[in-house]
Formats: sequence, C-alpha cells, structure tokens
Amino acid sequence: MTTILSDAALDALLAQDVPYGDLTTDSLGIAARPARMTFAARGAMVLAGTEEAARLVEKAGGRVLRVEASGTTVEAGAVFLEAEGPAGSLHRAWKVAQTLVEYASGIATRARRIVEAAPGVTVACTRKNFPGAKDLSVKAVRAGGAVMHRLGLSETLLVFPEHRAFLSGSPEVWIAALRRKAPEKKIVVEVGSVEEAVAFARAGADVIQLEKLPPDAARAVIEATRGLTPPPVVAPAGGVTEANAAAYAAAGCRLLITSAPFFGQPADVKVVLGPA
Amino acid sequence: MTTILSDAALDALLAQDVPYGDLTTDSLGIAARPARMTFAARGAMVLAGTEEAARLVEKAGGRVLRVEASGTTVEAGAVFLEAEGPAGSLHRAWKVAQTLVEYASGIATRARRIVEAAPGVTVACTRKNFPGAKDLSVKAVRAGGAVMHRLGLSETLLVFPEHRAFLSGSPEVWIAALRRKAPEKKIVVEVGSVEEAVAFARAGADVIQLEKLPPDAARAVIEATRGLTPPPVVAPAGGVTEANAAAYAAAGCRLLITSAPFFGQPADVKVVLGPA
Amino acid sequence: MTTILSDAALDALLAQDVPYGDLTTDSLGIAARPARMTFAARGAMVLAGTEEAARLVEKAGGRVLRVEASGTTVEAGAVFLEAEGPAGSLHRAWKVAQTLVEYASGIATRARRIVEAAPGVTVACTRKNFPGAKDLSVKAVRAGGAVMHRLGLSETLLVFPEHRAFLSGSPEVWIAALRRKAPEKKIVVEVGSVEEAVAFARAGADVIQLEKLPPDAARAVIEATRGLTPPPVVAPAGGVTEANAAAYAAAGCRLLITSAPFFGQPADVKVVLGPA
Amino acid sequence: MTTILSDAALDALLAQDVPYGDLTTDSLGIAARPARMTFAARGAMVLAGTEEAARLVEKAGGRVLRVEASGTTVEAGAVFLEAEGPAGSLHRAWKVAQTLVEYASGIATRARRIVEAAPGVTVACTRKNFPGAKDLSVKAVRAGGAVMHRLGLSETLLVFPEHRAFLSGSPEVWIAALRRKAPEKKIVVEVGSVEEAVAFARAGADVIQLEKLPPDAARAVIEATRGLTPPPVVAPAGGVTEANAAAYAAAGCRLLITSAPFFGQPADVKVVLGPA
Amino acid sequence: MTTILSDAALDALLAQDVPYGDLTTDSLGIAARPARMTFAARGAMVLAGTEEAARLVEKAGGRVLRVEASGTTVEAGAVFLEAEGPAGSLHRAWKVAQTLVEYASGIATRARRIVEAAPGVTVACTRKNFPGAKDLSVKAVRAGGAVMHRLGLSETLLVFPEHRAFLSGSPEVWIAALRRKAPEKKIVVEVGSVEEAVAFARAGADVIQLEKLPPDAARAVIEATRGLTPPPVVAPAGGVTEANAAAYAAAGCRLLITSAPFFGQPADVKVVLGPA
Amino acid sequence: MTTILSDAALDALLAQDVPYGDLTTDSLGIAARPARMTFAARGAMVLAGTEEAARLVEKAGGRVLRVEASGTTVEAGAVFLEAEGPAGSLHRAWKVAQTLVEYASGIATRARRIVEAAPGVTVACTRKNFPGAKDLSVKAVRAGGAVMHRLGLSETLLVFPEHRAFLSGSPEVWIAALRRKAPEKKIVVEVGSVEEAVAFARAGADVIQLEKLPPDAARAVIEATRGLTPPPVVAPAGGVTEANAAAYAAAGCRLLITSAPFFGQPADVKVVLGPA
Repeated sequence: MTTILSDAALDALLAQDVPYGDLTTDSLGIAARPARMTFAARGAMVLAGTEEAARLVEKAGGRVLRVEASGTTVEAGAVFLEAEGPAGSLHRAWKVAQTLVEYASGIATRARRIVEAAPGVTVACTRKNFPGAKDLSVKAVRAGGAVMHRLGLSETLLVFPEHRAFLSGSPEVWIAALRRKAPEKKIVVEVGSVEEAVAFARAGADVIQLEKLPPDAARAVIEATRGLTPPPVVAPAGGVTEANAAAYAAAGCRLLITSAPFFGQPADVKVVLGPA
Repeated sequence: MTTILSDAALDALLAQDVPYGDLTTDSLGIAARPARMTFAARGAMVLAGTEEAARLVEKAGGRVLRVEASGTTVEAGAVFLEAEGPAGSLHRAWKVAQTLVEYASGIATRARRIVEAAPGVTVACTRKNFPGAKDLSVKAVRAGGAVMHRLGLSETLLVFPEHRAFLSGSPEVWIAALRRKAPEKKIVVEVGSVEEAVAFARAGADVIQLEKLPPDAARAVIEATRGLTPPPVVAPAGGVTEANAAAYAAAGCRLLITSAPFFGQPADVKVVLGPA
Repeated sequence: MTTILSDAALDALLAQDVPYGDLTTDSLGIAARPARMTFAARGAMVLAGTEEAARLVEKAGGRVLRVEASGTTVEAGAVFLEAEGPAGSLHRAWKVAQTLVEYASGIATRARRIVEAAPGVTVACTRKNFPGAKDLSVKAVRAGGAVMHRLGLSETLLVFPEHRAFLSGSPEVWIAALRRKAPEKKIVVEVGSVEEAVAFARAGADVIQLEKLPPDAARAVIEATRGLTPPPVVAPAGGVTEANAAAYAAAGCRLLITSAPFFGQPADVKVVLGPA
Repeated sequence: MTTILSDAALDALLAQDVPYGDLTTDSLGIAARPARMTFAARGAMVLAGTEEAARLVEKAGGRVLRVEASGTTVEAGAVFLEAEGPAGSLHRAWKVAQTLVEYASGIATRARRIVEAAPGVTVACTRKNFPGAKDLSVKAVRAGGAVMHRLGLSETLLVFPEHRAFLSGSPEVWIAALRRKAPEKKIVVEVGSVEEAVAFARAGADVIQLEKLPPDAARAVIEATRGLTPPPVVAPAGGVTEANAAAYAAAGCRLLITSAPFFGQPADVKVVLGPA
Repeated sequence: MTTILSDAALDALLAQDVPYGDLTTDSLGIAARPARMTFAARGAMVLAGTEEAARLVEKAGGRVLRVEASGTTVEAGAVFLEAEGPAGSLHRAWKVAQTLVEYASGIATRARRIVEAAPGVTVACTRKNFPGAKDLSVKAVRAGGAVMHRLGLSETLLVFPEHRAFLSGSPEVWIAALRRKAPEKKIVVEVGSVEEAVAFARAGADVIQLEKLPPDAARAVIEATRGLTPPPVVAPAGGVTEANAAAYAAAGCRLLITSAPFFGQPADVKVVLGPA
Repeated sequence: MTTILSDAALDALLAQDVPYGDLTTDSLGIAARPARMTFAARGAMVLAGTEEAARLVEKAGGRVLRVEASGTTVEAGAVFLEAEGPAGSLHRAWKVAQTLVEYASGIATRARRIVEAAPGVTVACTRKNFPGAKDLSVKAVRAGGAVMHRLGLSETLLVFPEHRAFLSGSPEVWIAALRRKAPEKKIVVEVGSVEEAVAFARAGADVIQLEKLPPDAARAVIEATRGLTPPPVVAPAGGVTEANAAAYAAAGCRLLITSAPFFGQPADVKVVLGPA
C-alpha cells in the first residue's frame, strides 16, 4: 500500500500536531490502555487519503486492521478504517488522520460528482489546490476519477492573454514556433470569446480553453471548428461545476477544466475511539 | 517584512509549480520583456499571505513595488500588490502567489466576519486546517483577528469523551490530578450536554467546550455555573459560524471555537500582468 | 516502539558521523564478521533515548535483541541494550547510539533527582536545552518524570519584565486584556521580589514565577496570597536544583521550574563490542 | 559574516521556538513598539555562535548594530551584541539567540582554558557533542582555539580494542595493510597501558591514543618511543581536563584529546531588552 | 539572477564539501588575507551553472564582480567569473563552484553541438541524467539550446513495448482510450521497426519514437506516414549523437531525442586564485 | 541490506520522476496487472547501487526476489536483480532504478579497471563527482575497489599552489606549523615539477601529489626522496587513467589519485518488464 505523502511528510504532519506527546492522554495516565478506533462515513463519499491515514496510525504506534482504498465509494455509516493499539497511540494519530482523510475525501467526492454529471467526458482539475498540499490534492482528484489539467508551468504549453500581451505577430506565426520548439506538447490557448476561440483554432491551437464562457458558447465554438483537421479540443474552464457539467457535455465538450472540487467542506468522518 | 513560511518552504512552492522554468513563456521567447503585475481584490476582503506572495515574486526575479500587510481590510478593486520585472519572472510567480494569497485571505476574511459578528468575544480557530498547510492557515486566522484554540496535543489539556472512556474515577479526582501534573495549563473539558457541562464545571474544569450545543444551552450552562469561583469559560464549539456567533455572544459566551473559516472559497484576486 | 526523533533525523545523525562507511573497520577487512554489542550502565541512571539508540543500531544493519524503555531506572552494571550483527554495522552505530543515550539519560537522571527530592511537587523544565536538540531533550525530561514548562512562545503567556517595560497601564488592565484575548491560557508573570509577586497575584495572575528568589521568599509569597480565590501557583525559577528543591517544597511550592537537568555530564554507559 | 548553521537550520530553530508568533507580545499589543536589545557577558568568556545569534535576530525582523566575532575573548560586563527593531522581533529572537550563544560560548570558553593550560600543545576535541548539535559544537571548539580530533568514522583510521578483538595477526601485519589501503591517513591506535602503547608504536602506529592513562604513563611511553623514526604522536584521551592538561604537557605530550569542553554550564549572558 | 538550485541545495553542496571550515587554509593562518579568483574557459564552451557558482561564492563569503549567464558561448581563455574576498572564503567555494560549472557546461556544450549539427531541428534530452542531479542537468540542457523530452512519468504519455505487453486489444482501441482520458496530451509510442512505426502512426499516435533505428529507417517512416492528417512527429531516440544528428535531420526528422549530452567529460575550467 | 542513500533521498528520487503516478500505465488501465522485472548486465561490469535500486522497487510497491550486492563483478547477460509486483509499481520504479544502477556501476567498473591495471597499488578517487551526487559516487568508488582521496576540505591537509601564493616563509616553517596544529593528519602538498616535489618532501611533506606529471617524473621523485625517513608517499594526480596506471605503478607509485572513473558512459543494463 503506497502513499503519495512520503514518510518524511507524514512524520512532519504528526510532529507538527504532537511534537512531544499527547499531554492530556499522558497526564491522565491512560496512554498504555488497550484501545480501538474506527473511522466511518457520516454520509456517502468517495474515499481518499485512507492509505495515508493508515500509515499515520501505524507511525503513532497503532495497528491497522482494515482500511479501504482511495477511490472507493462508501455509503453513510460504512466503517472504512479499523485500528487498535495503545490509547496513547490512537489518540496521537486520531485528529491528524481524520482531518487528512476528510479533506482528501471532500475533494474526491466533489470531483466524482462532476465526473458522474457528465458521463464519458474527461474532467480535469486545475492546480489551484491549497498551497503546500499539492500531493494530497492530486491524489484526491484522481481518486475521484478526474485527471489533472496541468501539473505546473514546466511541462505544458498554455498561452494566456497575459502571454499574448507580449506578442505582436499573428497567431499562426507563434503557434507554429511553439509547435517547432515543443513538438511533443499540445498547444493550449485560453480565450474569452467565441470569436477568439475560432480564430486560434484556425491558427492551429490543439486545445481551446474557454475562460468563463457558457455552454452555448462552447457549442458555438465546437460547431464552428468541426471541420478543422483535426478539430480542436474545446474545454470550458472557469466556473465549471457539478451544476453545469451536464450542460457543457450536452454542448459537445469532451473535456471540462475545473477548480471546484478543491473548494468546500471536508467530508464528514465519524471517529469512535474507546477501550478495546 | 517577515513571513511565516520559511525561505525553504517558499522555494518548495515555486519548485513544485515551476521546477524547470515556464515552458510557455520561454518557448514564446518573451521571458526577458519588461513586465508589470498587480494584484487587486475583486471583493472586500481581509488580506493574508501578502508578505509570502511578495517574497515569491522576489524569489522568481521580480521587484515588489508595494504590498499591503496581512490583516489589512481592502475594498473591492483595491490594488494591494504591485510588482515589475522580466515577464518570465512575473509569469513564474503569478499563479503560486495568487493562489496563496487567495486561500489565506479567504480564511482571514471568514474569520474576521465571525469576529465582527460577535464584538468583544474571542474567536478561536481549531487546528482543522488543510493538512500540510498549518503555517499559512494560522497566519490567516490571526490576520482575521481570531486566535488559535490549541496548536496541537503537546501544549494543552483538552479532555474529550474519548479520553473519559478510559477513566473510572470521579471527575474531581482526575481533574485534580491533571491540575497537579500540569499546573500551568487550564483544564478544558468537551461536553455534549448541559448536564455534563455543569457537572464538569463543578468538578473543577477551567473551560467547558460545548460540542454542538445551541446558544440556549450555552446560556443555561453559563447561568448554572455563574456562582463558581471562578466561573468557567463556556465555549461553544462544533457548528459555530458567522450566522450564529451573535446568538452565542448574546447568550453570554466570551469564547467561540470554530473551524468554519477554513472551509469555503478562496478570496477572489484579480491579477493584471502585461508589458511595463 | 516509537521514537521522538524521526527516521530522517536518525538517518541524519548516522550520516553525519559515518557518511561513507567506517574507514577503519572496512580497511581492516572485518566488517562482515559476526559481532555482538551490549550497553550497560556504569552507575545508577534513568534511561532515556534507548528507543532511538535501538533504531540507530537497526538502521546501521544490526539486530536489537533487547532494549529497556526510556524512563526505566537501572542500577550500575545493568545491561539495557543487546544487539548483534556484522561488525561493520555495530561499529557504525556504536558511538552515535552511545552518545545519544548518554546525553539523554544524563538529563533524565538529573530531572529524576529533582523530582525525587521534592515528592508530590511538579518539576517543570525550561526550554533552555542545547540548540538543535529539543526533541531528545524533551523526551529525556519526561523520561525523568518532569514536565515541560513551556514549549515555546506561541502557546503560553509568560509576561517578563522585558514585556512590562513596554506597558504603561496598571497590571489589572493588561492582565484582564490578556485574559480576554487568550481565555484558554493561564497568565504567568515573572517577578523579582516578594512585593512584585504579591502585587501581580492580586492583579489576577494565575502563576507567579519567582526569578532567583530563595525558599523563604517563596514561602512569603504563598502566605501573602493564600487568601486569593483561587490562590496563584507560586513557582520558583532560576537556580532551582536538586539541592534546594526540598526547601522550596517545604516552603509550600507545588511547581518548580528548572533548567538544571540540561547541564552536566552525560550518563556513563559502558559498551562492549566484540566477536559474537 | 558567515554562519556554520545554514539559513534553513536557523529558520528551524526559530520555527521550533516561535512557530506562530509570540503570543505574549502579540496579546499585549506591544509588538510594533521600537525596542533595543543588548547581550553582555556576565563573566569572562570566549564568544562563539555570535554570528548565528545575529542572524537569528535579523531573521526575526531586527537590525544588528554590532556583534563581536566568534573566538573573541570578552571580560565580564562587555556588551558583544546590540540590536534594535520592533519589540515583537526582538522578543521572538531573544531566547533562541541567547541560548545558542550561551551553549556555544560555554564550550569555547572551556576549550580555551585547556588550550591556555598547556601552551604550545594542540588540544583536539572528540565528536562526543550533544547529538544533533555537531555544527555548532565544532564551531565552538574552533572558536576556543582547539581542533577536532576526528569528524567521524569515514575520514580517519582509529583502531580501538573493539576492532582488534576481530584481528588475529600481528600488529605489524595489519598496520602495514592499513598503510597500504589508506596511504594518506595517519594510523591512530587506542591503547590502555604503557606496554600496549610501546608495542603498537614499534609496530608502526603514527599516533598512540592513551585511554585514561595518567601523565606519568604518557611520559613513559614518550621516553620509550623516542628513538623510533619518526617517533609517534603520544596523545592522552579520556579524562583530559583543564586540571591535568599542564601535567600532560609537562610529560611531553604535544596533543591532548578531550571531550571535557562539551560538558558543563552554558556561559552566562545577560540580555537587556526594552524600549528604544 | 535566479538559480535553479535553491539556497538550501547550494548550502548543502557547500556543507558536504566544507562542513566545518577549510582545515588547510585555517591551519596555514591565511583565511583572512584578501584574495581574488577568476574562472576561465580552457576551451570553447557553452556556459551553464554560472549563476549557481556565483551564489556559492557569495554564500562562502566572497563577492562576485562579474559573471556570464548560463547559455553564453565563450572562447578558450575567456574569463567568465571574477570574485574577490577573504582567501578563506574563496578557497571554501573554489572546487564546489568549479566542479558545478564544469559538469553543467559539459552538458550544455554537448547539447549545443547536437543542436548546431541539425539546424532547425528540435533536440530533446531524456531524463537519463545523473541521479540526484536533475535540476542542474535540466538547466544545462536548456542552456545548450535543447529542450526536455519528458520530465517524468506523471505528465506525458509514452507507450513502451513494456506497456504493450500487458495490452490485448488493437492499437486503435487503446490509443483512442488514451486520447479520451488525457485529451491535452500527445500520445507518444516507442517502436523498434519501420513496420511498427507505420502501424502505430496509422492507429493514431501523435509521436513515433524510433528506438535505435538508423536515419534510413526514419526516412522510410516519414515517407510512409506523410499522408496522414496530421502526419506524426517521427523522432529517433537511442543512439542519437552529434555524429548522426545531421543524417537524421536530412532524413526529415524534426525532433531528435538524445541522452548523449549527459555523458562525457566535464568542461575544463581554469581557476586562478591568489592574493588580491 | 543498507543503502548509502537515505529513505528520504530515495523517496525524493521517486517523487521527482513520478510525483503523481505514472500517467501512461494508469491511463492504459494496466497498473494492477501482475508483472515481473529483471535487470541484466549487457556487458561485463562491477555492480554498484543495486541495494538502492532494490529499495526503490520496494518503495514503489514491488517485491525484490533477488539482488546482487554492490561490488560484485558480473558477466554480460547476468541477471542481477529480479522483482515482481503490480505493473504500476514496476513501471514506476523502472527507469529511476535502472539509471541509478547504470551510473553507479559505470563509476565502479571504471574504478575497478584502474585498480586492476595497477595491482598492489591504492587507487584514490577525487571528490570531483557530479554535484549533488556525492553519496552514490563514493559508494560506487568503493564498490570498484578504490578509496576516496579526500572527502572534503574539513578533514585533510592538502596544500595547493593556490595556498602557497599567500605564504612567505620557507616550507620548513609552515610544514612544521601544520604538523603542530594538526598532528593527526598527514600533510599533502601538490606540486607541478620534480624540483618542487623534492623540495617539499625534504621540507617534511608526508605526501607529494604530482599535478599532471608523467610516470618518468614520478620515478625521478621517488628515487630522489628514497633516502628520507620516512620517504614520502608520491602520488600522481591529474590525468591518471586506466591507460597509464600501470606505468605509474612501474615507476614505483603506490598511490594513484584520479577523477577518471566519474567520467564516461553509464554501464548498460538491460531491463525486461512484462506480465508475470
């Protein structure tokens, strides 16, 4: 069972929360008592980060009896992690593990909802995750059935208006230059209108990223560029949510780009911790 | 201007997003062009993380001309960070800095709203922040005018029902033991009912943390424990939000414990980046 | 068996001492020979850091057959760690493990002596540990039966004269303000005389920290503040040692604050390493 | 002004002590007040770690006006570091910087005393420093005028009895083998008696390390090996202190190996911190 | 002047080579003497890593008077870095800085030679750099005018025979599936023969990577796939060097994939270090 | 089986290459398929880094069935590592593990060739390894049967002309001073001519390092210094390779200093990865 957070990262999470032991448990003199802990879903959710939660429990000195894998869908009430060990160990891991799986599962669950709202369409999440939490966020996105739009600036070509403000030549010229310099990359261009979209598609862009354009506009772009060989990928971005994913799919989009799964409440996990 | 994120942490954020340069900017040949970038609030917000954003811009090779401090309230449209430098530098820092300030300001703004909804009351945020993002989250909480409830398990005494499940003696006994073992700490006890609250207060707890009890229940606890010397701090926790903070204050609470500021949308920052 | 030093920290200790193998053992051609190593106490001591020592031996390629837990009291001559493995592995871990357990046990032993000199009194150690060695030092303090006074500046309120130099109002005013801003924290005030002590206690301080005052002065403060509700915790600090702990206890102190355990000789551990 | 602790290490020291700001200073509302801080020696001492202390002050947001270099001898009362800045910054750095310079100067001062007790003799300190604090300890040793005996196991040849227990051949054989395998290293052999010393010197050892032998024994070894070409370096180790260094020097030793500077009280530094 | 190695990475390089000062310089008593150091090319070379070298000199306490940027072509004899400062500082940085710029410039120079051997063709380097040295290697590749083939496994689709061994369906099926799952990525397929190349191109691959096929074979593939819309990118890989780059270009290849720049001698840099 | 790269370093290698999973394997849906992987030598080689390769496979989720130790000589075709596990795990580790073992084995093999070209002579490698890859490089050097010349500047005395440029006194004077200050170190002096060599040897240097002098010159130095007691170690450095090692040995050198093993092609390892 591999984790996306390294041992060092998991150690750091524990050390940040419990640098020198659990003062309450130790002062109460209950640290060595045999204990048992379960994690259960309070509502239906897509699990993510459960492997990391399990490893945290083990690092704190507990034994994990059972854990469901990231990506699993569970119903309300389902127990997905069971552990036992000294009360001090389980108390030490409890909140760190719970919070991790709640945040990750929240992202995975929201990503899954968009995926299910638009069957057959690829949902790609942006890198607008909480700063410093990219690893876990990407894992959650993938657990939800979505993919990553781009991992960073070094491995993809995405031409924003903020790039074009520095360019003077025609799109055909710089798109051809990009293609020559990075022949293994698709050229993605962000646009703010149907007209721009069509123009850049004709100039050779592989992917047209629609910044906050409604489904109707997406449909218009798709229809206007259908005859190109090959036709561009037309991907709405900015404001894509569970609510409008189906409309974009109906408009013909086969790729949706969204930051929505990163925002919102963590999934709600019920923890029971008591004597074994 | 000090930052809560260390240089190493800020370097890591940049390295994660732009490990080997900005492929788009470099391929377009515009990296050396003189450029200018501003960050402005799209709505009213309390700023947080602006010092970190500024440092990121500088690390990427830009010059920061002006930046407002964390904790500042700004109106919609207000520019709070201005920078200039090579286009490659500003593009490299853009999204990392923007995302950081958006998440942090979102937390700060939500914390401030609760603070303002309950004047004269102390608002304490839990440590239920996004895993791996504690430093920035704490900074944002404080920028919003709130304080931290507890930083972790090693420096405070908070007796949960999950601790008491291992205890057999009367509360008077273990509370006295805690007081003897940790005489510099207040003893906080989490309770689930008015009856429990009153019982633990009488047994000597310094702070009674009400788990998901409504304002009326808080009022009942306060009234029932008013005569104790000293009376306990009665603090609602679990479900405290901007919406009910005033009601808790009206009930007599002087401390509110909440995770709400951590959840929700990042603040919306408008970035303008173009030729200088 | 959990350690307070992370795997990364233990790896770093080994890497610092033996970055590229043990030149002597390797050059002599004895690295693969079966070997055995024991650690024994040369005098009575309270063990600390034994878990870390054991882990170091394992990381170097040895097998630990037996190890006594931190906090155990052992008599002179007692063997508390036995290991076997290739001579190269045991030589690699030897001095790093020995030095670690010697320093930690020295702290634990000195802490225990103060604890035993003042039965029923809580002994709290300051954070004046060797810079860069806080984790191990805290573990040793706790192994000795003492607690930590404060872990750092972010989680406690301790008002030094160096703070008060910036304040103009009466103590009642700023103590009340502190209480409002940090209602979950006790307010600790450091004083340099009986008069100051009494004044700040009357103004509302929860804990009065006596800076280098003798037992008689402590007694005077306790008597003068006995009638307050509740009476303050009166804690001597600065110069508290094994020699005067009983006198402070006899004066009525229930909390002693000391840095003394951090200073002094490491405990003396005899290592036997030879062919198995 | 270079430091032996890296920026990351200094950041970590501050972060460990003040992870989220100084609660007392912030709660009192005095963080922005202009302040001034001086460090002075309470007794004569050899300074060490002052560069690191200064850098800590700067990292916390202060300005260092003057600082004396590591290695400088100062008299009681001498101010060796002056800084100014916001009260919050100086309070944040105060104890971390003070403790660092106290421990380091304690080592340097004790090392210097041994150096001065044996003029013309080289004093070499072992690597028996506090685990995790090697960088600062080595710097302090050198500030005191001593050198390091060996930095670790990878760069020197030191044959302990614990190595010889695995060897069967005559010393001439394995010493010759060591010389062939590591021709750029001196061969150091630790012995427990005059007889062993003479035997290993005759077998070709370059340095004879006397484990807990008195000055008379050292003299005997020196006399017995004087005729060798070249004569070995005869170095007492184990129990060498300020008290017996002169006796060893008088016995003819030109190298003393000692752990004594690492043990003992930190140097005493008086800090004055108040309004500017 | 930004560096690809972070401050922490540069500090680590220095700490690894000079953990506790330069013993020779210190023992000779010359560390404080004013000194001057220049770096010059012994032969024509493309510089890389000069910014890192300069930062190393500064970190060691020197002042950099002049440094040429990475990517600059210099002739034999050209001085490209000048620094001054205490002899101890320059000696401390000397070899670390020299070795870094020699290795990086070696890669850059070899990359540039391939680029120049095939004008108008894109040269992409594999990630077969020295393990642990990816940052500097990528910087050197780019300084030489080449690009990176793929940064890792998470951001590109490259189907090896070792993937296809697990697939049973026709290429059309899994290529379509890949396109649906990763619509923003090009699909690269590695092949070992002309026949495979043509088959996968017809099945829809965007890029055909020829594993160790000669220029003639590349030409055959290009001719056989010219009529596809769009025609695939045909990229030789495995064995592409300065010697055969022109032949591949003449065969019609517009992308060459190579590991050759990583292998070979470092560039030769002459360092002059003496009294200022 | 211990590794010279720490777990954190190995985790970092994997994270750098596969930060968020293997996109190809995952997109093809084959990650869970049972698979098998073998590493075999394409030519005769001395293995190095195999323990690290094995650990990488395990970290990625594979099981290592067999692995040959670093330092083993294998013939062309010999399989030296066998693993099995999910296809996703083996694909994840494949290239990272292969590249690591190829580079390390390349160094080890070249080192071994020099060792074998000069039987009975010690071959010492310089620290001119690829920056950032010292650990693995040193391991490879030792696997090849060579030793390290010096690990860095802090543990050896090596007087370059660049040091002597700051010295005015006679060599006898500063060599005696060095000997007094560092009595446990040999004094190594780098020279550029036979005359210098003889002069410094007569002045007391322990090791004479010949910078780019041919075998005849080495012989001349050896003959001219044979009568010294003891005679110096005469070690050619700069340009020592497999081709001239025998000539230096024939000239009487017993120590050769070389950087040659670090340069050149990685060893060629054939990986077979397919269904189990």
